[in-house]
Parts: sequence; structure tokens; C-alpha cells
Amino acid sequence: MRPVLDDSVRLTGEGVLILDRRVFPARQEWVLARTAGEVAVAIREMVTQSSGPFYAGLAGLRLSARASRGDGVDTALKTLADDGELLTAARPTNNHVRDAVREVLSAVTAVSSADQLADVVEAETARLESLYRGGSAELGRLTAQLIPDGARVMTHCWMDAYLIGLVQEASRAGRTYEWVVTETRPYLQGARLTAHTLAEFGFTPTLITDGTAAAAMSPQSTLGPIDALVTAADRVTMDGHVINKVGTLGHAVAASAFGVPFYALVLSPDRTAATASDVVIEERDGAEVLSTLGSRTASSLVERGYYPAFDVTPPRFVGKIVTDRGVFEPARVGEYHLGSHREQNS
Amino acid sequence: MRPVLDDSVRLTGEGVLILDRRVFPARQEWVLARTAGEVAVAIREMVTQSSGPFYAGLAGLRLSARASRGDGVDTALKTLADDGELLTAARPTNNHVRDAVREVLSAVTAVSSADQLADVVEAETARLESLYRGGSAELGRLTAQLIPDGARVMTHCWMDAYLIGLVQEASRAGRTYEWVVTETRPYLQGARLTAHTLAEFGFTPTLITDGTAAAAMSPQSTLGPIDALVTAADRVTMDGHVINKVGTLGHAVAASAFGVPFYALVLSPDRTAATASDVVIEERDGAEVLSTLGSRTASSLVERGYYPAFDVTPPRFVGKIVTDRGVFEPARVGEYHLGSHREQNS
Repeated sequence: MRPVLDDSVRLTGEGVLILDRRVFPARQEWVLARTAGEVAVAIREMVTQSSGPFYAGLAGLRLSARASRGDGVDTALKTLADDGELLTAARPTNNHVRDAVREVLSAVTAVSSADQLADVVEAETARLESLYRGGSAELGRLTAQLIPDGARVMTHCWMDAYLIGLVQEASRAGRTYEWVVTETRPYLQGARLTAHTLAEFGFTPTLITDGTAAAAMSPQSTLGPIDALVTAADRVTMDGHVINKVGTLGHAVAASAFGVPFYALVLSPDRTAATASDVVIEERDGAEVLSTLGSRTASSLVERGYYPAFDVTPPRFVGKIVTDRGVFEPARVGEYHLGSHREQNS
Repeated sequence: MRPVLDDSVRLTGEGVLILDRRVFPARQEWVLARTAGEVAVAIREMVTQSSGPFYAGLAGLRLSARASRGDGVDTALKTLADDGELLTAARPTNNHVRDAVREVLSAVTAVSSADQLADVVEAETARLESLYRGGSAELGRLTAQLIPDGARVMTHCWMDAYLIGLVQEASRAGRTYEWVVTETRPYLQGARLTAHTLAEFGFTPTLITDGTAAAAMSPQSTLGPIDALVTAADRVTMDGHVINKVGTLGHAVAASAFGVPFYALVLSPDRTAATASDVVIEERDGAEVLSTLGSRTASSLVERGYYPAFDVTPPRFVGKIVTDRGVFEPARVGEYHLGSHREQNS
């Protein structure tokens, strides 16, 4: 079967249909974005997240190129670059959209007409999506090698394509896991997306609050030992800092304290980010903490929330970083970009 | 002013009115418990929590003794003991109700009539409540000495009488704090009770999700440094383990990793609990994690939650334990029960 969330961005004649992850699975609603600018707004407003902005960003570039058919090539190129900027700026922390925009723009430098530009954008975005899905499967394959059959695995937020890759590749290798899922406030991606998708795959995941993660990993837990903490990373710096959904840091620190290995998955570390201070951490409106799925849940007297959407886990709290070129100790993940890197586990 | 939550258990002619903390402050509803057994059910069902069960337990003992007026003394004694058992068993982890029941039962051993028993129970419960409130003020006074004026203080869940004591005693000492409050899923006591009460006192607390606590304490935080993590403890063992609302452990581990001192407040360590394995950790129905304030928030495909209501923080992650006899290093908190203890900070 194919989980609903694995096909949640769909290009149609009218525009891009984006599954609204803010209300899924309670409701299956799709937001129609007719232009790249509307895609950028949808990303900014969290209609989709995790891998979603990458897929939506690619679709946004296609919309841009399509709309320019018949224009002069310079106009089309300028439009594509401007739209790429909008899509990149929608959310600052994850770098997949930024990198995809760069790849597409560099593929069109030599085109001689707007029609040719649109054809190249179609082909290039298809190639990038295929690479992303293939890379996610490779991360899954490598991670499954680190985690034995029957292990109890804790995950935070929603790993999207990486989770799907891990489940499918583990299954291919004859391994199945017991899943423990943190709910991931304020948007509850764990409770709504991860746990839902694992259930679609036939698992019976155990849901916990974010505050229960340390207790579940501690020797006093009555849930049974947690064998691994596995999350995606929105960004990994060249010196091994892991930037991911807020909450990851606390779970990683607790995992480290209680001897649970933490594996962070990312296609590649970001060669433009030497260390954590080179990454912009998106600080969202603190009001998002005062509500739960659109309903006010804090006291009406509370005026102020604080919501950094991501946190930074220093390399000393990270076990391994799994990339599409192999598994690295965090301190050595910069070797990813050396021609001569070695796979450390395979 | 007196915060609403400071007067949330009220004995009337009909029974005990208990403010329903599950819906407060969105709604101010009171549950009427007409017998000690009904009080026990209300405690079990989380109508009240934190200091609430202690106040409600005392009121339950009064109801029991009142109802026995006119009975034979042996019947009245047996009824009081049975009702004390019910109240103690309602929730297993906090020991204030248990200790209060013991005190009251030992005060009535020599009574010669049911009427005299009722009078002694009235006096003894009033004395215990007064001791509890005085002790809470003393914890507040000692804690305020540990935290300088202007500090940014993070707290988890709802410290109830201890929080009120801390705010009032700090104010008396000319100290005011900037408060950061974790929301405390699944019941959101932080978002509803702590933040509300701090706002009643005139503060503007900052609310964060439980998963944001580590990020807020880390050097990367944009909130400014957290100067202290302060929580109540439902139980402290003689060897310095702190048992408190689930989430405390993760916050304490992160605080330790990032050099933030963690102060745990308890009137006294439990001399009947040598170490953590002597304390029953209440495991509540996992379904409580699948909803938020009564509305389903997890995917409907999710069948299983895990909700230990408390966690155990080992002494190595605890900075100081503040008791009504002074401030202790966790490893030395057992000295509380020696006649010759010293106050280590005052």
C-alpha cells in the first residue's frame, strides 16, 4: 500500500493540490495553489511540512515555468528566479527547497526559449524528486542495518519520506520494529502523521507526550527498553550539529544520558553551513503554542508563547548521522563531501 | 489577591466542593463530593491534583467523621480508617494524603465517642492544613533565597501551594522573576493552571511546549538564559530521587547538560521510601494521551498510548532539594530526618 502522506502534493492542470497536514487525518482537505507564490504561502502557513515543501517547491517551479510559456526567454528566466526566491524564503531552516531551486536554475542557464525552459524544468524537477525518493530509500536501507529486528524505536515529529524508506527497507531486510511516537506539540505531527502512517503500514504504534520521552528511555520505564531514537534532520552542519523539529534536542540529551543510540537521517550535510550559527532557526509566532489544532487550550490570561520551530543538537549528543553516502560519526560528517569518503557501517 | 486555585477545595454543609481543574480556567465548574468515597473518586478522576488531593483528603476525613456522629465510637473509628484507606488509594504516587490520614488516625486513638472523634478530626485536619500552608511558604522563602531578583525561572506542571509560596515570599524579599512555563501535556496544567495563576499575580509568563524546554535552556536559545528550573516533587526518596509529573526528568537532564540549576521542592523526603523502587509510579490509561482536553487529537487509527503520570529523576540530575527544614544536596536529603540536620543554605 502507499500511505496517503507519500502522495500528498499533486500537480494538476489548475495548479498544485497540497494535502493540508494541519488538519489531516481528522479531515482530508487539499489546498489548491495556482502559482509559485501561492505555493510559498502554503509552505509558510504550514499546509505541508517535512518533505512536503520539497515536493511542493518542485511543483511550484513547474507552475512558474508553465506560466511563462510564450514569454520571452529572459522574462521566463527572471520569473523562475524570482519564484525560486519566494519558495526558498517561505521557511528558512530546511535547505531542500533552496538546493532544488539552485539545481533547477543552473539547469536552465543555456535555454533559448521559454518553451525549452519549461521542458527543462519539467525534466529537472522530475529528476530531483526521483533522486530524493531514491536517497530516502537508501537512508532507510542504511538505518535498518543499524537497528536489529524486533527493536523498539522511538521517533519524533514526522520523518516523511525517510520514515517510509525506513519501514519499507527494513521490511525488505526482514526486520520489523515496535514504534514509539512522540506527539510533537504544537502541531502534533507525531500523533497525526507519523502514528497514522505507521498504522497504515500495519503497525500498532505507541503514542507518548513529548514530556514522556525521557521517562520512556530511562531505566525506570515500564514500556520496555528503547533500542534507538531515530529522527530526520532538517539540516546537518559540516561539524555534525543536527537541526530538527524542536524537541529533538531534549530527546537526544536524554538518549545520551540513558545510553540509547540516536540516529539522525539526512540526505547530505549542508556544505554551506560550517556550524550551527550558520543556520537560521525559524522562530514562529508564539501564539501557535497557545492553541491545539485551532482551539485555544491555554488560559485566556496567557498572552505570550515562544515557539522556535527547530532546535540544535550538538554532535556530542548524536550517535550516528545516516546519509545517502553512508553512516558517519557526527564529528566526521564533513567527509561526506570529500570524494574519498568511506562508509563507516555497511 | 488570592488566586482562585489557592481556594479550590471548600467544605460546605452538603459536602466538599472541588474546583474541576480538568476544565479550569476555560470553565469554573465545581464537583460536589458528599462522602469520603466520592472525594476519592474525584481525586482518582483528576478533578483536582497537585496540592488539591491533600486539601480534598482532609475534607473527606471531616465528612467521614461528621457522618459518624451519633454512631458508636468503634463504628466511627472503623469508618474513618476505611475512608482513609479509600482516600490514600485514590492515587498512589504523592504521599501527602497517606501521611495526613496516618496523622489523623493517630490523633483519634483515645477518643471515647463518635462526637469527640469528629471534634478531634476537625481540629487535626485544620492543624495539618495550616502546617501544609506554612510549610509551603517556608519552601518559597528558602527557594527565593536561591534565585536572584530578575532571574528567568522555568517551571513544569503546577506547583500549587509551593508556587504561591514562592511568588509571595520572593515578593516579600523584593525579588521578582520572569517565568517560563511548560504546557505539560496531556492535561496542560502548565498552560491552564500555572500560567493562569502567574497572570493573576500580575506576571506575563511565557508558555512553551514540553519539547521546547531543552532548546530554551540551551546556549542557542533566543529567549535569553534560563537561570533556574524549579518544580515541586510529589515524592523525594531518602537517597535523593525526585518523583514528579512526567516531563520533569527530561527537563532535569537537559538542565544538567546546559548548566541550569534544578531545584525540587518538597515539604519532606519520604522516610518510608529508601530509593526509587520503593515508590509506586502511577500508570494512567494510555488513552489520556490520544486526546486534548476531551477532544480526540491523535489520528483515529492510533489505538495505544502510554502515560506514566510521573517520572523519576536520579539525584545526579538534581541541583538542590528544598524542604521545610532547609536546602539539601540530593545525596544528603536523608539527613532531613536526623534531629541534628543543618540548613545548608540560609
